[in-house]
Amino acid sequence: MNSETGLDTTIFVKTVLKGWETQITRANQFFDSASDEQLMKEVAPGRSRGIYLLGHVTAVHEAICPLLGIRQRLYPQLEQTFVNEPDSSALKMPSIKELKVYWHQVNEELMKHLLQFSAEDWLSRHNSVSADDFAKEPHRNKLGVMITRTAHVSYHLGQLIFLREKS
Amino acid sequence: MNSETGLDTTIFVKTVLKGWETQITRANQFFDSASDEQLMKEVAPGRSRGIYLLGHVTAVHEAICPLLGIRQRLYPQLEQTFVNEPDSSALKMPSIKELKVYWHQVNEELMKHLLQFSAEDWLSRHNSVSADDFAKEPHRNKLGVMITRTAHVSYHLGQLIFLREKS
Repeated sequence: MNSETGLDTTIFVKTVLKGWETQITRANQFFDSASDEQLMKEVAPGRSRGIYLLGHVTAVHEAICPLLGIRQRLYPQLEQTFVNEPDSSALKMPSIKELKVYWHQVNEELMKHLLQFSAEDWLSRHNSVSADDFAKEPHRNKLGVMITRTAHVSYHLGQLIFLREKS
Repeated sequence: MNSETGLDTTIFVKTVLKGWETQITRANQFFDSASDEQLMKEVAPGRSRGIYLLGHVTAVHEAICPLLGIRQRLYPQLEQTFVNEPDSSALKMPSIKELKVYWHQVNEELMKHLLQFSAEDWLSRHNSVSADDFAKEPHRNKLGVMITRTAHVSYHLGQLIFLREKS
């Protein structure tokens, strides 16, 4: 609680995490209901397939852990296939079934850690910004990472939705 | 400044607005460089055209003003064509040139107002949540609206990007 203004600073954090949770829930609903057949299709002609985007968002969410100083990744092998290389690289991928397990596990584990952070932790710098840059740009904090990643998963959900039949 | 923890509460707000600004900048870069020919195409077979999505994000950003109690909309006529109806409704639309002007004006005007809000304003309820619901769910505040709308514009950017040639 901010004793000057009566503001509860934890509400700022809850508001941002609620935004993250909303997108994760939407993504869960999409992936849980998508068939293997749907996920093996390209989201648009010549673009990534659903399976690649599932691996991609999983790998990106995995990478939040070291960035926020939580722990190392659980599935470091996803980075090469789903972040460094495009879908067209034809690298061997885990099965859709495996990727769905990873997706859920990565987000559930991550959320447990995020709920432990104090308001102060959230405003501290993440591991990809130098102390000097952070002094000049204090918005490059841990909370900012979650806002960027919320927009990122939403970006790909906008693409994945094209795998559904038009209503 | 929170005198108990030494936290500057304005940083929470700056972090969220920075996330919004980042997406607006990306969208500006997209729309400013997209040709009329590109924007008249569907983003994927049988889906909305670029012109519709330009009108849609403009209308949705317009609607943030009354929701946050800033003022009424500048272009209320956009709502019917670009929010209530799908692209396929074949309603008459403003030209791409006009829509680009609206897009920039709406976002610039909005940002001026957003920069006036205090940290306390940001944690107050928006106009689509009742006082009773807000008491139970304090994350349904004005800042939460910006987080949701940041994810929303990113969702459609993920689709619009398909109008670009594959690199």
